[in-house]
Amino acid sequence: MAAELAGNCLISQTGGPSAVINASLAGVVTEALNHGCIEEVYGALNGVQGILGEELVDLAAESQQAVRGLRHTPGAALGSCRLKLKKQQDFDRVLAVFQAHNIRYFFCIGGTESMEMAAKIGETARAANYDLRVIGVPKTIDNDLPATDHCPGYGSAVKYIGTTVKELAIDADALGSGDLVTIVEVMGRNAGWLAAGAALAKRRDHPNDPPHLVYVPEVLFDPAKFLEDVRRILKREKHCILVVGEGLVDKDGNYVAVETSGTDALGQAQLGGVGEYLKDLVEAQVGAKMRVARLGVAQRAAAHLGSKTDSDEAFLAGQAAVKVAVNGETDKMITLVRGDGDAYTCETGLAALADVSVNTKRLPKEWINEDGVSMNFQFYRYATPLIQGEVAVPFENGLPLYTRLAKEGVDKALPAYEG
Amino acid sequence: MAAELAGNCLISQTGGPSAVINASLAGVVTEALNHGCIEEVYGALNGVQGILGEELVDLAAESQQAVRGLRHTPGAALGSCRLKLKKQQDFDRVLAVFQAHNIRYFFCIGGTESMEMAAKIGETARAANYDLRVIGVPKTIDNDLPATDHCPGYGSAVKYIGTTVKELAIDADALGSGDLVTIVEVMGRNAGWLAAGAALAKRRDHPNDPPHLVYVPEVLFDPAKFLEDVRRILKREKHCILVVGEGLVDKDGNYVAVETSGTDALGQAQLGGVGEYLKDLVEAQVGAKMRVARLGVAQRAAAHLGSKTDSDEAFLAGQAAVKVAVNGETDKMITLVRGDGDAYTCETGLAALADVSVNTKRLPKEWINEDGVSMNFQFYRYATPLIQGEVAVPFENGLPLYTRLAKEGVDKALPAYEG
Repeated sequence: MAAELAGNCLISQTGGPSAVINASLAGVVTEALNHGCIEEVYGALNGVQGILGEELVDLAAESQQAVRGLRHTPGAALGSCRLKLKKQQDFDRVLAVFQAHNIRYFFCIGGTESMEMAAKIGETARAANYDLRVIGVPKTIDNDLPATDHCPGYGSAVKYIGTTVKELAIDADALGSGDLVTIVEVMGRNAGWLAAGAALAKRRDHPNDPPHLVYVPEVLFDPAKFLEDVRRILKREKHCILVVGEGLVDKDGNYVAVETSGTDALGQAQLGGVGEYLKDLVEAQVGAKMRVARLGVAQRAAAHLGSKTDSDEAFLAGQAAVKVAVNGETDKMITLVRGDGDAYTCETGLAALADVSVNTKRLPKEWINEDGVSMNFQFYRYATPLIQGEVAVPFENGLPLYTRLAKEGVDKALPAYEG
Repeated sequence: MAAELAGNCLISQTGGPSAVINASLAGVVTEALNHGCIEEVYGALNGVQGILGEELVDLAAESQQAVRGLRHTPGAALGSCRLKLKKQQDFDRVLAVFQAHNIRYFFCIGGTESMEMAAKIGETARAANYDLRVIGVPKTIDNDLPATDHCPGYGSAVKYIGTTVKELAIDADALGSGDLVTIVEVMGRNAGWLAAGAALAKRRDHPNDPPHLVYVPEVLFDPAKFLEDVRRILKREKHCILVVGEGLVDKDGNYVAVETSGTDALGQAQLGGVGEYLKDLVEAQVGAKMRVARLGVAQRAAAHLGSKTDSDEAFLAGQAAVKVAVNGETDKMITLVRGDGDAYTCETGLAALADVSVNTKRLPKEWINEDGVSMNFQFYRYATPLIQGEVAVPFENGLPLYTRLAKEGVDKALPAYEG
């Protein structure tokens, strides 16, 4: 065990929120209060933006009720940001803020870019001989972070997507009025994890259940085969439910939606989504009635339908970050490690921040059926456990009751940063 | 009390489904089994389409579990249709099918057009001296049926819209990156009930809560005022959440989206929705970052977030239809009647089918604040009770478990209908 390091801790949230990023925050706060070596528990408002601006809040002053409520509250309770630190001057400022507030533990909840930044903050501290422990907590609904079996945020997004696809399919089926194609566009710019997750809406042993067709960026898109797929389904079923990931690419590896613009005679810069592109294809070639649903940001915000497994693991990852930091670890990211047994189990592990490269983890090709539009048992075995259980969300006056933090400010110690 | 009429009953579902149209079906089936004068309980597959085709199923043969499951299952379990009967020959065929199966009670779950059709079926039977009792059960998420305080389906749709707006607002607020406008486009071609319902996402006594701006068809749209509204909100808040009903009209009473096409230099027939239209306006004139969510069919299918009040009232309306028919009523539609007291209560009443005209019931002007973009206490008092309570939806393997009927066919007695 490393020498005990006494001081304060700071937590930040960066990048796009998810339904469970606040559960990780709750995990860090709850666990931090268990360790005497951690004196104050601070949060940075709006990620690194708040660190640069020295806008810190006292999380230990929040009510226990509020911290508990974080476990089912969407968004990023501390506020997030998309700011990227580039200049060494920025990193020096971060260190100055840490020194001014005796921050010895830094917990960074975020995706790939946040992990890179956390690594750089760690380096800056080391170079200045400032004793600091930096631990990353992964989050992304895209599930494309390397080194971890899956990412907190993914299970809840898939639970929402699967439910919505199921409901849209039941609605379409009820209409019974012949050829109707429903296109559901989901997120996932570089990997098909979310689109593939929609396949969970199929019942076991009912391969003909909706969604009938799933298009992921890992399978190069062929318009001729696509139209054949749609025609085949319409012939077999009354309607066709089709799910597509926004990052679909053609045989040359270009985004399908971008290619449309390229071949557009008017050369308009404004693009429709891939859902609209597929709609246009079907309308021109097949002539069916069409509906397009673009789930958008709701995919990462629908905490009313969160996966309990996902939320619990997000909390666990937050707790684990504190435990390993207190034990002397630094410059690591918490990972989720799946057990080998038949029954699903999940523990936390560690990866070096430096190893969490910008490479995205894609859907394994061997999990996709030969038809290119459905998933096989390996994907089901992987994803099914991640959506199990429902988060108990309290309702008030008919709508979910989400938590707002009091955000009691910490006095500033430094002059304003000019950047 | 009218003379007892013995015979079979038939139930149909027509028009667009809602989250609770199956709860009304469950109400009819459950109550029908309580009355000895009703022998068989049949359902028509895909509404009048199934009646013309003599495609009837035996609902008494369904398991009790299945009927119970209907209370939380979206879509139309019997199948719906958009078919409109026009020729007298069609109505004669309906009567022939009723006679062949001794149908003496006809329960028609649907909207305005379905009620008109039910009235015509009643007339046809009367003209042929065939004793038939016809009762309509209202359903529409649009809430625009006259004669009833509100419509089954509306409360659940508003609960879903309000929750989604709340979650999108929390997500947008977390980003904290300056001017961001989120546009949420909801249904409602001729009335603003659904868009207005989004206002319930505001907390009591927090008028500055999102949604910041609500645009309904009842208020003529003025682009200059709109841009002023958006600028004002962006100045006051970090971001702007804006809800718009698809049927927004301009000062000349034309649909806003149609007007765009009219002024489009390229004269393209394909139109974007009103959300995209507003997005283009803001982008051109204000220059904020934009997100558009088009909730589409999910608004009527999201049974996982159904309102218990709405579901219970839908069931009650189904039960009431049977009770009044057995008591001798015919050519009526069940209405929902709100009690006069301070605490919300709701009973069923009756309206003549003939009075359920095609006129839509619009949002009263006096429920809209003078600013034209928010609702006053009268709307809150009206709508808040309708979203109370959550329907308990069972989950299986991480996703909602919805009911499928066994649909045991009834033997045909007539030759096929050529129409």
